[in-house]
Amino acid sequence: MRTIDSPELALIQTFVAAFDVAPPPAGPGDDCAVIHAAGRDLCITTDAVIEDAHFTLKHFSFEDVGHKALAVNLSDLAAMGAKPRGFVCALALPPRLRYGVRRIAAGMSRLARLQGISLVGGNISAARELSITITAIGEIGPGGALTRSGARPGDALYVSGTLGDARLGLSLLREGIRRGVARRQLRPEPRIRLGQICARHAHAAIDISDGFAQDLAQLCRASRAGARIDTVSLPLGAELRRRARTTERAVRWALTGGEDYELLVAVPPAGAAAFERHCARFGERVSQVGVVTSGAQVKFISPEGTTIAPPPGYDHFAGVRSRTD
Amino acid sequence: MRTIDSPELALIQTFVAAFDVAPPPAGPGDDCAVIHAAGRDLCITTDAVIEDAHFTLKHFSFEDVGHKALAVNLSDLAAMGAKPRGFVCALALPPRLRYGVRRIAAGMSRLARLQGISLVGGNISAARELSITITAIGEIGPGGALTRSGARPGDALYVSGTLGDARLGLSLLREGIRRGVARRQLRPEPRIRLGQICARHAHAAIDISDGFAQDLAQLCRASRAGARIDTVSLPLGAELRRRARTTERAVRWALTGGEDYELLVAVPPAGAAAFERHCARFGERVSQVGVVTSGAQVKFISPEGTTIAPPPGYDHFAGVRSRTD
Repeated sequence: MRTIDSPELALIQTFVAAFDVAPPPAGPGDDCAVIHAAGRDLCITTDAVIEDAHFTLKHFSFEDVGHKALAVNLSDLAAMGAKPRGFVCALALPPRLRYGVRRIAAGMSRLARLQGISLVGGNISAARELSITITAIGEIGPGGALTRSGARPGDALYVSGTLGDARLGLSLLREGIRRGVARRQLRPEPRIRLGQICARHAHAAIDISDGFAQDLAQLCRASRAGARIDTVSLPLGAELRRRARTTERAVRWALTGGEDYELLVAVPPAGAAAFERHCARFGERVSQVGVVTSGAQVKFISPEGTTIAPPPGYDHFAGVRSRTD
Repeated sequence: MRTIDSPELALIQTFVAAFDVAPPPAGPGDDCAVIHAAGRDLCITTDAVIEDAHFTLKHFSFEDVGHKALAVNLSDLAAMGAKPRGFVCALALPPRLRYGVRRIAAGMSRLARLQGISLVGGNISAARELSITITAIGEIGPGGALTRSGARPGDALYVSGTLGDARLGLSLLREGIRRGVARRQLRPEPRIRLGQICARHAHAAIDISDGFAQDLAQLCRASRAGARIDTVSLPLGAELRRRARTTERAVRWALTGGEDYELLVAVPPAGAAAFERHCARFGERVSQVGVVTSGAQVKFISPEGTTIAPPPGYDHFAGVRSRTD
């Protein structure tokens, strides 16, 4: 898989190689790390949003930036099936943007209240570019954390919500449209409740941040398995279908768009019906898009039944400077 | 106190005001926040080092940057009397500096091994300026966390090590000297063991990151108390005395220099002798520099017995762009 050799993953591997680390979930390599603290497991994750790499102030309001900084971390907790507990926030702030602090905090606190998670500490430093690094902590239920590595051949693969909308949102923002699907880019909704449902039914999960194809590859690699995806089953929103004009383009955005912050979940076939019922009861939309296979190959099947090669996912260090420019 | 109205604190207050937060130590406002997790308290802290604000690559090697990023966080754990447990690292990396990742990790992992703390997760993003945001977690002993707010009138005030050396180190680096006292700037040593000794004897503690005068003001404010400091008792290293030329200048650097990462500790008078013996047994140098007083005033007494007004401490948003330029 191309993604395994991506520059970003190579950098992470270089960094981690210097340390004595436990395998995931106790060490790096999953959506969160798990810390064992007397009697209970805690999930911990850290993620940053950086001006001009993850957002531009031309398109994002300060409230959007505050929301998204927290949302991307909560999405990692969701993928582990964890219940959010607290977070710390390190804000790097150009002095010219001091006036935005109140609005950044307002966007972040609104999401924090919705999800019942408390700000417990933080730090503000002067910097040349605006960035927000959040570390979030969650509690794991008695069944243990949901990881990327538990998928087994035969498992049904589900995704939540719709794919490609964050990518469409980017195009809409460039046209000056901030409403509707554009909000998928500005205000992603972490699938916290769905994650806790998945923790009871699924073998493995990952959140879709770098694009479905790339995150699927991560899940398969961690699980030492492959996958077969029926692209005709990918959940595409009506506006994406309309605006992309061709189905081929809509599917490409769904596979590689990134930042959807939906969950990709591997569910054992015997539990699939119960999983779907549980999701339906709580109004959580999930779609089966394929199955886990043995071997390491990930195959994408076109509506005509032929195998198609997806374009690569986004990589920060692959020469693309910005997702939002 | 001027520091209480400082722009950086005002920004933090603006940010925090948007959230429903618990008072410290469960919420923001101390060196770390405390999270209650079944049966045990965990300390959590986050801090960033940012290129040209906290270091320059002209003076710091990549190993120094990696060391310092972790050290400043471990210093916060030390101030709470916590035992380091694990940390996550978010690295924002300009693509031109990719070659430095291995060396940043090497400097960080050396300190992590020395202190017995594990890297548990992290994240690398492309950015315009190099920054490292670490969130560290520590365990608190059965006596509970040491906070800033417990100092009482009559307590003896101690500082560890020597003061002002990090400021002197900055001058040495500008002269091209990287050895000796310059290492106090490049490779601060978090006082982890001392912090655990303090947890058994002290009423309150804070680490000295923004300068003795400013951090003392924070401790006094949190404790609703004042202090009287005998400047003649401030622990000054021989090289600082020599290089500063005048005692007045040496004392000014000791009071305002910042980044010493020593501990300032308030110890009840009845326990002071036992505290000093405990420190001596483990080779931890501490000096009594004054006492906690009632009221809100902080007085600095000159060798001649007159009251002197200290210059203000460092503030990122007070118009000073960089400590290291």
